[in-house]
Amino acid sequence: MDISDLAKRIAAGERRALARAITLVESGRADHRTQATALLNALPKDQQALRIGLSGTPGVGKSTFIEAFGMMLVGLGLRVAVLAVDPSSARSGGSILGDKTRMDRLSREAAAFIRPSPSQTHLGGVARRTREAVALCEAARFDVVLIETVGVGQSETVVAQMSDLFLLLLAPAGGDELQGVKRGIMEMADMILINKADGDLKPAATRTCADYAGALRLLRKRPQDPAGFPKATMVSAMTDFGLDTTWDDIQTLMTWRRENGFFDQTRADQSRYWFEQDVRAALLAQLDTPDAKQLMSQLGSAVATGAMDPTAAAAQMLSAMAVDLGLARVDPASDSP
Amino acid sequence: MDISDLAKRIAAGERRALARAITLVESGRADHRTQATALLNALPKDQQALRIGLSGTPGVGKSTFIEAFGMMLVGLGLRVAVLAVDPSSARSGGSILGDKTRMDRLSREAAAFIRPSPSQTHLGGVARRTREAVALCEAARFDVVLIETVGVGQSETVVAQMSDLFLLLLAPAGGDELQGVKRGIMEMADMILINKADGDLKPAATRTCADYAGALRLLRKRPQDPAGFPKATMVSAMTDFGLDTTWDDIQTLMTWRRENGFFDQTRADQSRYWFEQDVRAALLAQLDTPDAKQLMSQLGSAVATGAMDPTAAAAQMLSAMAVDLGLARVDPASDSP
Repeated sequence: MDISDLAKRIAAGERRALARAITLVESGRADHRTQATALLNALPKDQQALRIGLSGTPGVGKSTFIEAFGMMLVGLGLRVAVLAVDPSSARSGGSILGDKTRMDRLSREAAAFIRPSPSQTHLGGVARRTREAVALCEAARFDVVLIETVGVGQSETVVAQMSDLFLLLLAPAGGDELQGVKRGIMEMADMILINKADGDLKPAATRTCADYAGALRLLRKRPQDPAGFPKATMVSAMTDFGLDTTWDDIQTLMTWRRENGFFDQTRADQSRYWFEQDVRAALLAQLDTPDAKQLMSQLGSAVATGAMDPTAAAAQMLSAMAVDLGLARVDPASDSP
Repeated sequence: MDISDLAKRIAAGERRALARAITLVESGRADHRTQATALLNALPKDQQALRIGLSGTPGVGKSTFIEAFGMMLVGLGLRVAVLAVDPSSARSGGSILGDKTRMDRLSREAAAFIRPSPSQTHLGGVARRTREAVALCEAARFDVVLIETVGVGQSETVVAQMSDLFLLLLAPAGGDELQGVKRGIMEMADMILINKADGDLKPAATRTCADYAGALRLLRKRPQDPAGFPKATMVSAMTDFGLDTTWDDIQTLMTWRRENGFFDQTRADQSRYWFEQDVRAALLAQLDTPDAKQLMSQLGSAVATGAMDPTAAAAQMLSAMAVDLGLARVDPASDSP
């Protein structure tokens, strides 16, 4: 594979080159990983897309919202990429965004690029692949990268840690359902959008929006929020209601953050975070080799049957991995002070 | 320090020797760690206490319950040790069980041993110290080891992973407060005890107990539970109401689990769990040396300012730590297939 040619074609905005490059960064093969690293290093770094994280539980209309919102952005002359983080896709066999027909109009736009989540069991792997895919989309001169995730487990944190702003999409609900959204996820959100604010559901949407606006006022004010943020507003992906004001709100927030240094600061913090995560993950990945797995399993069985003490077994495991950590070796003769 | 003499005195049930040994396992000094490991290896392994984990939020009367329950066990001729897991003690400056006068009667019993939580910032460190303290108490021929924790964060999981059974102590409450207990903690509990079932609070306790009994019935049945378990019952640490039936319930549960293999299986699983945790923690502890911290901080800054790519920085960090993980090195010339 000619890496520098691929880099040039990505920088020229060729969608097929971008798709091929994302397939490369998704691969687990060692030679592909080498090529992916070389490719990422060969890409121009002067492009910066707006990275928008988007979460919402199934049924709130995420696909419909992304299609409507994406079409509006394309209509404004912007190029839009959509990526998905779905750690559950390996389990369920399917994947969010797997069915591009759910974004029928957007997927046919030349200025749009939609990439389903790959099948991966490991959230760490998904995170790395998505970060690299975002970098590829930026190099391909997309203006906006939407990173979608389903509202499960820790995937929101992963997406928030690679986004410039984080949107939480909710459906209208009864007054009691506010607590269904975990406080931690609310604290991540820069904007909460109550979808389906149309027809019969409009009154419920209005109520839900007021509930969340009230809940957001109770959260501790963050330095990176200008007056009025985080905010809760209503949208309808079906009627396009509120999509334009949502984009206005995003522009207002991002302009304020850029002018006050928070935009660059957040990206710097995120880069440091991913560097540290990469180091930790790599240290633990030493346990994933066949040899390490086999020894870990053998020692684990010895510990389970009581034949070995957990600490002694851990010391033996680390010694076999040539890791010396000052774990005390067993020395029955060391009775002296 | 004469380790084999200390081991003999612990096995003879000397409380001062036990206290000294726990101080040794709590120490962070490398030479103390070596001695602690030697001591743990020198201890007889033929003693098995019943390990009871106990959790409950502040204000439910944990200390009063432990005192009353412990006194009852002592009255039955049993020797009782009480240990605390409190990851918050370092932060708050205090510690649960720190004030032994809260267990005035029990602390004066010759058959009882009470040990406050040490000041530690790191839950992993507390976990290891507590596991080793449990082993010391078993070697010292205690019949029951009560491991207390406050209901915060992950400390329940830590305690449940070193206990034969897990008790959750709750206070009487209004009907709506059931959801205040996280589902994950309820799923860990073998028995939920509604304390303060006395005087004016008796009706509220009865209602709360029925609520939790209902909630427990909705949880998935676990293979290690005989009919009727997990169960919710009422106690009063003030009037001793329900303490005897709680002990009867514990005996019933433990006898059933011993006869059906779950007691040994649980301990085997726990040993394997702690072995694996020790290995992971030790791998990550490589980042805690002064040299590693300094390099990590330098590379982190380079990544934050954009001078380095996170992946390249991670590769350099691991290379400096002499860890080779197949992370692709940057080689701009590797454009060939």
